[in-house]
Amino acid sequence: MRPNPTDWIAQASALLKGHLVTQSSDTEPFLTDWRKRYHGNAIGVALPGNTEEVAALVRLCAAHGISIVPQGGNTGLVGGATPDTSGQSDVISMRRMNRIRSIDTRADTITVEAGCILAEIQQAAAHADRLFPLSLAAEGSCSIGGNLSTNAGGTQVLRYGNARAQCLGLEVVTANGDVWDGLRALRKDNTGYDLRDLFIGAEGTLGIITAAVLALQPRPAAQVTALAAIDSLDAALELLSLARAHLGPALTAFEIMSEVSIGVVRAQFADERPPFSPLPAWTVLLESSDTESEVHARERFESLLALAFERGVVQDALVAQSLAQSQAFWRIRERIPEGQAREGANLKHDIALPLAAIPDFAADAGQAIDQVLPGARLVVFGHLGDGNLHYNVAAPPGMAPNDLLAYQAEIATVVNDRVQARAGSISAEHGIGQLKRAELRLRKSPVELAMMQAIKQALDPHNRMNPGKIL
Amino acid sequence: MRPNPTDWIAQASALLKGHLVTQSSDTEPFLTDWRKRYHGNAIGVALPGNTEEVAALVRLCAAHGISIVPQGGNTGLVGGATPDTSGQSDVISMRRMNRIRSIDTRADTITVEAGCILAEIQQAAAHADRLFPLSLAAEGSCSIGGNLSTNAGGTQVLRYGNARAQCLGLEVVTANGDVWDGLRALRKDNTGYDLRDLFIGAEGTLGIITAAVLALQPRPAAQVTALAAIDSLDAALELLSLARAHLGPALTAFEIMSEVSIGVVRAQFADERPPFSPLPAWTVLLESSDTESEVHARERFESLLALAFERGVVQDALVAQSLAQSQAFWRIRERIPEGQAREGANLKHDIALPLAAIPDFAADAGQAIDQVLPGARLVVFGHLGDGNLHYNVAAPPGMAPNDLLAYQAEIATVVNDRVQARAGSISAEHGIGQLKRAELRLRKSPVELAMMQAIKQALDPHNRMNPGKIL
Repeated sequence: MRPNPTDWIAQASALLKGHLVTQSSDTEPFLTDWRKRYHGNAIGVALPGNTEEVAALVRLCAAHGISIVPQGGNTGLVGGATPDTSGQSDVISMRRMNRIRSIDTRADTITVEAGCILAEIQQAAAHADRLFPLSLAAEGSCSIGGNLSTNAGGTQVLRYGNARAQCLGLEVVTANGDVWDGLRALRKDNTGYDLRDLFIGAEGTLGIITAAVLALQPRPAAQVTALAAIDSLDAALELLSLARAHLGPALTAFEIMSEVSIGVVRAQFADERPPFSPLPAWTVLLESSDTESEVHARERFESLLALAFERGVVQDALVAQSLAQSQAFWRIRERIPEGQAREGANLKHDIALPLAAIPDFAADAGQAIDQVLPGARLVVFGHLGDGNLHYNVAAPPGMAPNDLLAYQAEIATVVNDRVQARAGSISAEHGIGQLKRAELRLRKSPVELAMMQAIKQALDPHNRMNPGKIL
Repeated sequence: MRPNPTDWIAQASALLKGHLVTQSSDTEPFLTDWRKRYHGNAIGVALPGNTEEVAALVRLCAAHGISIVPQGGNTGLVGGATPDTSGQSDVISMRRMNRIRSIDTRADTITVEAGCILAEIQQAAAHADRLFPLSLAAEGSCSIGGNLSTNAGGTQVLRYGNARAQCLGLEVVTANGDVWDGLRALRKDNTGYDLRDLFIGAEGTLGIITAAVLALQPRPAAQVTALAAIDSLDAALELLSLARAHLGPALTAFEIMSEVSIGVVRAQFADERPPFSPLPAWTVLLESSDTESEVHARERFESLLALAFERGVVQDALVAQSLAQSQAFWRIRERIPEGQAREGANLKHDIALPLAAIPDFAADAGQAIDQVLPGARLVVFGHLGDGNLHYNVAAPPGMAPNDLLAYQAEIATVVNDRVQARAGSISAEHGIGQLKRAELRLRKSPVELAMMQAIKQALDPHNRMNPGKIL
């Protein structure tokens, strides 16, 4: 059935009490992704105010044969919230559904609507003397519905897991327009299939997450960071192993930065002084979240680093002596993607590998990329503790960054072949969306793809939920 | 199609190189559940030796229209691994597939076959100076395939999560007889739907788990336990809150035992001396897993308990001064179900509630049960830190335990109504199996049941995998 736009618009607008955007000047921000790689069209952008409106809207779209593209803060990196160019779909932006429904400090849970901004949830938790540990670069504008739909990662996964691990229950509007009330605040519940974890990470292709119950954590007494200068990825993994044994669950971050990636920060930010001189091959940022005190955290770091020193694992190290210094250490890490954006176009690969395979992968991929594009700069950084590298490639010195794009497909194949050969992941935390959809088909087994298709068909038989994403 | 037993037996026996049991004297142990509540029949009990044999067997069963009942250590509490009485199904016991395929101390992962006994995995981890924290009463005979298929809980969930949280990847034989190789050793992987967590907890109704990659943890430097005497459930929750803030992730267990439940232990085990005299209304067992030392663990406990004392939250407390004393504290807790078994029949309810709802639930349910069966003894114990109570009911003094069974349905309704009213779970860790299948239909919303049915239909369209369980 071909949608009848006029009818649908009138009915949707009435249903949403006017919160339907159809003027192209107003819809524009909803039709382009964060990195401006994709641009789509839509019949309208709906801004429902509550779950019942979402459900009624989904039923209305079904009646008119209109597809649905759910959207949160629109900060995704794979085009997962951008409609196709047909103009036959309705973007449903969750931004008006931004209430914190309740917070329970006895059970350490918070119940939030999908449109809540991540940073606001963090603040609400802090206000109640609790921690909501999900933390990532876009936290000031991304929404929790998007975080859950993409199973977001970030800097605290090592200790607290990704978004999935921090969610106890969901409210979802299904592809039929039913409301599934799975808003459970339970730590244990073995009553049938795990629907929650199926909707988490499904990028809006199975239903729309409208609310969630999230787990809160005790606030640590102190957070202290340290930097370590390391001469090889092997040594970095040895330090990780020592740190896990020595600090246990107090180890909340273990981030790595290549010499080239810190070079990018130094070149792009005049105020940034590199922590070690000369720059080591690898700089590791460690964070400890201590339940006792700052002094205790620092002592534990110092004994760890002394041991690592003694064993020749680290060449130099700095333990932050103040909150300001901890923040300065983190800023170097955070400025890498920002510095890359200032340089211009670059090729991003968000990969995960079994930890032990990382040194060999890096040697192999580095060599192969140099054959494709001699002198290409490897801006390698990321969450080593999780086996997750942002294995980014920048233009060789002297090449205009945009000329790099001609090598995009070839270099992605070089990287992904080597990831696949080591049973790694071609998308550790960013998801599939539109960007990696074709690649997914190449990399997954027919058995796995067939099961995903069967589930999609079972829960969204008319392919109305975010078509053209993932599968 | 009506199965032809003779053909199937000949072909299955050839395929399994003789590892097919059909004599009733040999099949008997596979056809009855642990609690002897269910007894079924089977065409045969297959004992495959590797994944390819499992896959070929599933295809053979499909060709003959024979249903499949996967079975691990056969220690489940809900009849999930017992076939129906039709004699039309094949029990597939995984016990011969008990190899530890590999252990990787760099990545802290272990890859095991489904038939591995849980205690053997714990030992292999300890041998490599790591911890595999999944721990439960049946660990000496239950298998990891069963633990994953039922998403087992146990005593360390508070810190390490249930079986689901400890599994990184799976190998599964699907209902078609395909092998899904999802044996990933990755901490992060956002490439499509979360099939792993769908098979975990599905109780063998969607496919057969044949192997898994599990996450290992650093071994704590010391584990110390403490007991606290508490006068109300409200105070117990306050102690939990204090302990979480004070010990953070070092708090690895928080178990509660009612006065009546310790009374059962005292009555059934002549050598058991109660820890507090007179017995308090509630005794809490806390466990700390410390990354520093036993002395440090004890100091942290002492400062926590001093604070709790000062605030009037605990009436008395004991910190174990040796490993032997820690084990003695745990033994009291472990002897409760054993003591109940010695007493005879009792009514078990494995429930979870949002933490804040527990005191009110207990008051309400206790009163209602007393109206149904005056003097009924409430043997309440379990994993309070997870909101999970074993809310068991024993016969009033003077009543023969077997006479209690006449009240089973009525008391279950009293309990489950009050669990449902507080958005709790009627099966926190034991699963659904046959035992709670009818109850599940009463307690879940039509929307949720319809989604589960759709998924079952998608992945097992001929309803061959463990029919009659869960749905």
